[in-house]
Amino acid sequence: MFGLPGLMCTISQNNQRTDPVEVYGPVGLRKFLRVSLELSRSLLGFSYTVHELECLTSQYPDDWNKRWKVDHSSSYQCHPNEKNGTTLKPDQNSIWNLFSDDKMQVSAIWLKHRIPSFGFIIQEKPLPGKLDPVKLKARGLKPGPEYGKLKQGLCVTLPSGEVIKPEEVMGPPRPGRKVVIMGDSCDSSELYKLGHDADVLVHEATLENDLKDSALEKGHSTPGMASKLASELKVKQLVLTHFSQRYKPMSADIKEGDETVKKLRLEAMEILRDDQVVVADDFMSLNIPMKSAIS
Amino acid sequence: MFGLPGLMCTISQNNQRTDPVEVYGPVGLRKFLRVSLELSRSLLGFSYTVHELECLTSQYPDDWNKRWKVDHSSSYQCHPNEKNGTTLKPDQNSIWNLFSDDKMQVSAIWLKHRIPSFGFIIQEKPLPGKLDPVKLKARGLKPGPEYGKLKQGLCVTLPSGEVIKPEEVMGPPRPGRKVVIMGDSCDSSELYKLGHDADVLVHEATLENDLKDSALEKGHSTPGMASKLASELKVKQLVLTHFSQRYKPMSADIKEGDETVKKLRLEAMEILRDDQVVVADDFMSLNIPMKSAIS
Repeated sequence: MFGLPGLMCTISQNNQRTDPVEVYGPVGLRKFLRVSLELSRSLLGFSYTVHELECLTSQYPDDWNKRWKVDHSSSYQCHPNEKNGTTLKPDQNSIWNLFSDDKMQVSAIWLKHRIPSFGFIIQEKPLPGKLDPVKLKARGLKPGPEYGKLKQGLCVTLPSGEVIKPEEVMGPPRPGRKVVIMGDSCDSSELYKLGHDADVLVHEATLENDLKDSALEKGHSTPGMASKLASELKVKQLVLTHFSQRYKPMSADIKEGDETVKKLRLEAMEILRDDQVVVADDFMSLNIPMKSAIS
Repeated sequence: MFGLPGLMCTISQNNQRTDPVEVYGPVGLRKFLRVSLELSRSLLGFSYTVHELECLTSQYPDDWNKRWKVDHSSSYQCHPNEKNGTTLKPDQNSIWNLFSDDKMQVSAIWLKHRIPSFGFIIQEKPLPGKLDPVKLKARGLKPGPEYGKLKQGLCVTLPSGEVIKPEEVMGPPRPGRKVVIMGDSCDSSELYKLGHDADVLVHEATLENDLKDSALEKGHSTPGMASKLASELKVKQLVLTHFSQRYKPMSADIKEGDETVKKLRLEAMEILRDDQVVVADDFMSLNIPMKSAIS
């Protein structure tokens, strides 16, 4: 959360972006962004909207308002670039439906932590199938601009007057990819509702298995917890993140006796295959291949 | 400023620090830190205090409150770890005297920018001289624990009853080092009051010399402006920073035709020597050698 105002300023300064930005996050995010951008007097080159997820009562610890009462509302003026956002309530299954268009659907679930925390599920919509060379040939179509039209979902009329619809010469649609990105958590069991067969699950693993009690006490997970979840959900790849500073990243200058994130990776590999476990590092990027059609 | 709450959380979580932290910055910083730490419900392992620099009227642009009225005050409850801070006004020379102890003195000056901005001058106090072997020998002192006592500034009594004071066997005190760290600026002329003979001057150079008009319009500097200042103040080393994203850092993957920060470095070298110009990069550290005594 602390990096968000800087990210928005960077996007504005360097990318010459003018498209509106829609931000989703827990109640209080609108106030944080407004105060941060106001006090730094940051004007953006685009408008932005904050949609706040209203938390479940059960997400708050019992002493939430007793020990430290914090005002999460943003009752005063909008930022000059801010457009009114919405408050998003969970549905009857405790799922927050954030966004949906013809390309993807984004949902959120709650995670157990010392403060309200969320996991986000990004489900790509099914993609159109590939052109089928056998079917194309059978209909008398040769490689050329008609292929491009059909790929775009447009009909093609042959010189004979015959009309070919894309679905007649295409293979079956390909399933969309699913990416799950989880926040701080010591219990991610809500993910059993939406996380099955994810291509990538990004999950925290703050402390090693032997320190599970300490992890749970602080609202965090171990590699054993994350990999058990990934295995049960039949996730293709688990990306471990949010490591305690006691584990040096592999990119660091490592001396003998240092504990590294490799230890956490090996613990996850007690349940998952080697190629299923990725240890996140700053600026890492991960390619998620397109899926083949199920025939 | 955006990185400050995260830095404080990191210090608290990883360093087991319990000493109080004193933060100095422009009016509004107390509110920013309070709101950021509150909304993230971050409790720290130490207490902290924010001392706010009250800006000069001349630091505000004419339309400061007309275009966008921002409330910089923090009128509601303190953060649980927060101790009351002070408001620091400039003295009759427009210098903010922030801090002074037996080791260093920290002052601030104002810089011209589109919003209030400051430069900070850290002046190390003179360091005690080195033990003089000729003087030590003349007084009949041989290497041993007495040397340590004298180094610590303590008197030593010889078996004869003769008392030797540290200043009697030490060379002259060594001048302290001076480090100047400047914020965003398109006019740093206030530094002529305090910046002479600095060991290091960290100054922004957002855009190249040919884009000076654009730099000035946005409240920023060029390498030519920064190096002229450094040269006139007889600064030993100039560290350029705050580059526009159009210049790739030298650590990046550089392709033919890319503009890099090297261009900015070369422009500063039109006025300064090669070894006087340093281009800042993320996580860079710079050694500032101790000074010899002036004999």
